[in-house]
Amino acid sequence: MRNLTLLTDFYELTMMYGYFRKGKTQQIATFDLFFRPFDESNFCIAAGLQQAVEYLQNLHFDAEDIDYLRSTQAFDEDFLRSLQDFRFTGSVRAMPEGTVVFPYEPLMIVTAPISQAQLVEAALLNIINHQTLIATKARRVCHAAAPASVLEFGLRRAQGPDAAVYGARAAVIGGCSSTSNVLCAQMFGLPPKGTHAHSWVMSFPTELEAFKAYADTYPDNCLLLVDTYDTLNSGVPNAIKTFDYLTAKGHKPVGIRLDSGDLAYLSKEARKMLDAAGYPDAKIFASSDIDEYVLSSLKQQDAKIDIYGVGTKLITSNNTPSLGGVYKLCNLCVDGRDYPRMKISDNPVKVTNPGVKTVFRLFDNVTHKAIADVIALKGETIDPSQPLTITHPLERWKTKVITDFYVEELYVDAIVDGKVVLAEQSVYQLQQACKRSLDGFWEEYKRTDNPHEYKVDLSDKLYRLKQTLIEQERNTVAK
Amino acid sequence: MRNLTLLTDFYELTMMYGYFRKGKTQQIATFDLFFRPFDESNFCIAAGLQQAVEYLQNLHFDAEDIDYLRSTQAFDEDFLRSLQDFRFTGSVRAMPEGTVVFPYEPLMIVTAPISQAQLVEAALLNIINHQTLIATKARRVCHAAAPASVLEFGLRRAQGPDAAVYGARAAVIGGCSSTSNVLCAQMFGLPPKGTHAHSWVMSFPTELEAFKAYADTYPDNCLLLVDTYDTLNSGVPNAIKTFDYLTAKGHKPVGIRLDSGDLAYLSKEARKMLDAAGYPDAKIFASSDIDEYVLSSLKQQDAKIDIYGVGTKLITSNNTPSLGGVYKLCNLCVDGRDYPRMKISDNPVKVTNPGVKTVFRLFDNVTHKAIADVIALKGETIDPSQPLTITHPLERWKTKVITDFYVEELYVDAIVDGKVVLAEQSVYQLQQACKRSLDGFWEEYKRTDNPHEYKVDLSDKLYRLKQTLIEQERNTVAK
Repeated sequence: MRNLTLLTDFYELTMMYGYFRKGKTQQIATFDLFFRPFDESNFCIAAGLQQAVEYLQNLHFDAEDIDYLRSTQAFDEDFLRSLQDFRFTGSVRAMPEGTVVFPYEPLMIVTAPISQAQLVEAALLNIINHQTLIATKARRVCHAAAPASVLEFGLRRAQGPDAAVYGARAAVIGGCSSTSNVLCAQMFGLPPKGTHAHSWVMSFPTELEAFKAYADTYPDNCLLLVDTYDTLNSGVPNAIKTFDYLTAKGHKPVGIRLDSGDLAYLSKEARKMLDAAGYPDAKIFASSDIDEYVLSSLKQQDAKIDIYGVGTKLITSNNTPSLGGVYKLCNLCVDGRDYPRMKISDNPVKVTNPGVKTVFRLFDNVTHKAIADVIALKGETIDPSQPLTITHPLERWKTKVITDFYVEELYVDAIVDGKVVLAEQSVYQLQQACKRSLDGFWEEYKRTDNPHEYKVDLSDKLYRLKQTLIEQERNTVAK
Repeated sequence: MRNLTLLTDFYELTMMYGYFRKGKTQQIATFDLFFRPFDESNFCIAAGLQQAVEYLQNLHFDAEDIDYLRSTQAFDEDFLRSLQDFRFTGSVRAMPEGTVVFPYEPLMIVTAPISQAQLVEAALLNIINHQTLIATKARRVCHAAAPASVLEFGLRRAQGPDAAVYGARAAVIGGCSSTSNVLCAQMFGLPPKGTHAHSWVMSFPTELEAFKAYADTYPDNCLLLVDTYDTLNSGVPNAIKTFDYLTAKGHKPVGIRLDSGDLAYLSKEARKMLDAAGYPDAKIFASSDIDEYVLSSLKQQDAKIDIYGVGTKLITSNNTPSLGGVYKLCNLCVDGRDYPRMKISDNPVKVTNPGVKTVFRLFDNVTHKAIADVIALKGETIDPSQPLTITHPLERWKTKVITDFYVEELYVDAIVDGKVVLAEQSVYQLQQACKRSLDGFWEEYKRTDNPHEYKVDLSDKLYRLKQTLIEQERNTVAK
């Protein structure tokens, strides 16, 4: 396993050193990892927890890391010595991967001695921001493609090897059926997908020779890329000749792939040609700059496409290539006493929620669909036998009374006192968890454009704590 | 070193298997890696060659990789056995990192037995697309910030660990002075940068206590983040008190960092406050959602900022998060005879250039500024003593005659017959190379908005070859 301990911002280390020098290393900090309202989607799909846990479990400074830190001349020897047996001894509660999560709801809650909790900020954000971003994009793409399925094809345009491998993992959690990325498939037990490229065709004297050579190589898995020269005048007719050649030998061809041009028109024409030639079961795959908006348009045009390969725009989350998750101190426990902390800002969306928290999701007893979420202080409970008034957290005049509901708390323990307790799950199990979480929401919240706003309230107790702390802080600044 | 051999699309392996089964493994293919016109910029900064070369050098199938491929049931034992001593034995010519490169100019030219050249497509594209994208974005950001310098701060928003580490490397090549990313700094010999976060301030009872504690820890490197509570009413006054405290002890404070709000207004007010308090040398750092457009606006407003920390929008190339480089077969050598290959498309921007090529850059003898580039067939020369007519490659009626120029060929050998010959250079050396390459261009080509179009011609010989092949192909399809 790669040692990612130094995958951190330098200021985490200078702060650790400061905590060390100021005798604060025994203070227990709690940080929330959450995102603010996000352009791309009104909710996200939590992803990356498994890799975040592995990172925390493996955290240690090798001798060469300590030598390197010494060379920066920013630390003394006592501190450098203390790094030798540095381990993560804290606890992590988190939303399971695949969970539908809304702005301000902590995806992950880290409680640990302040130096440890501080060191891990940048890497946890890096891992969770990235995978959550891509799982969220994949959810949108797969939602728009349904009932057609989506393959992840983005390796060559991903932002480096990890973006490709972990991005493809997240894409499958968000709904993609598999990936073309062999390393990802190997690491996570997925079936790797793909057939041939234009270069295969170009390496033979003619397209027909190339197709027949491919058919000879994979007679029972023959999917032909038909746009190297001219899709309808050359590619599809040569594919049909090749399918005839295969059929004569007793094999059943898989289909064709379109990779350029007007996919709606070409797929409809190709479908007619394949049907007329006696191949109504041959599938049409399509790829070429696809995202959820292109998919909506293709559906409107009644394109005849069975399976999509989606690359660049999914693997980079093209329209919004960062999630913008943050990691904010919410509680400090000094000598056994809790001090809830919060960041004040002139900008109301940047004010954080203080204290150690949890999130409840309330479901209707009859429809089993989610009604609202409540961010509360840890230890609070919600009694479903009593009517509950839900209030908009910023626009306080908006309220709603709900009855006849049941409550789910959204967290699992991932690490307890340094010991990993998260059950490892396959990527397809996480995909199923994601599907179950999504099934709990009405379609109105999930559509591509202008989705309905879902209600996320603060509990009365948390709301009062927040107001009290804001008032205290304003008084301090005023002095 | 990580084994990235399976970082490939599955179709590269199925094609390798097809080449193996069809007896084509001795054919020598040449592939060009290049990008088409790119929304973000009219030119790019080449980057990632060092990592691409390391990847090729390390290419091998471990026993577990072969077992894994066996498990996919897509390959026979003869083929799997042939992978045991698979190595990259080909050659790579490439633009050195830091070079200004235009659309259609090959960043990298790979010549190798076709199976090898095919396998490496996806990983080479992944590595070169990513680093070239980020170096290009960094160039734009640094150009807009000058004379202020730019630090790379994007770890937490990068698309995974590699995107952070190699993105920061590319950002420094493109002009950033350093990075906050400690792992990147360690790997590439850069000074890691950073001070403290909001959580440092929030972990103390008051902002002033937090500042003084930081000043005690780093008395000679004291840079204070002033926006945790209220920048002008609390942060800057407390920073000044802390600077007084430091000065009394004989230390010189570094400055303050602004991380939210109206940076133009706050920096001007903070500058006045610092000057009035006797700290005219204290620097003002700023971060918060900065890109080249925000920088232009801050400059117009006469913001008083000395150093920028740029994160999310640089490390993700926010507006255009993928380069879209492609890897296209341009020549096949069978039994010692060359067959130039090209991909035809109805879309003129997607038609490729056939044959093994090179690129010449022509400079004016007096100004030493670049006049035009010429993509030519390898082995061609340009005689600078003769006038040269440059023609626009698509709009053929646009021509220009140039005289009094000198010629540079833009490639270096990186790998020759499997042996790495690329001289390893430090990231700062590559940054200098980038600066030299940029200095060869007039400002009109480098401005942020509506840059002047630079001329990239095809040599007459290449142009004629291309037309001949297009005609041949059209005739074949017509039949």
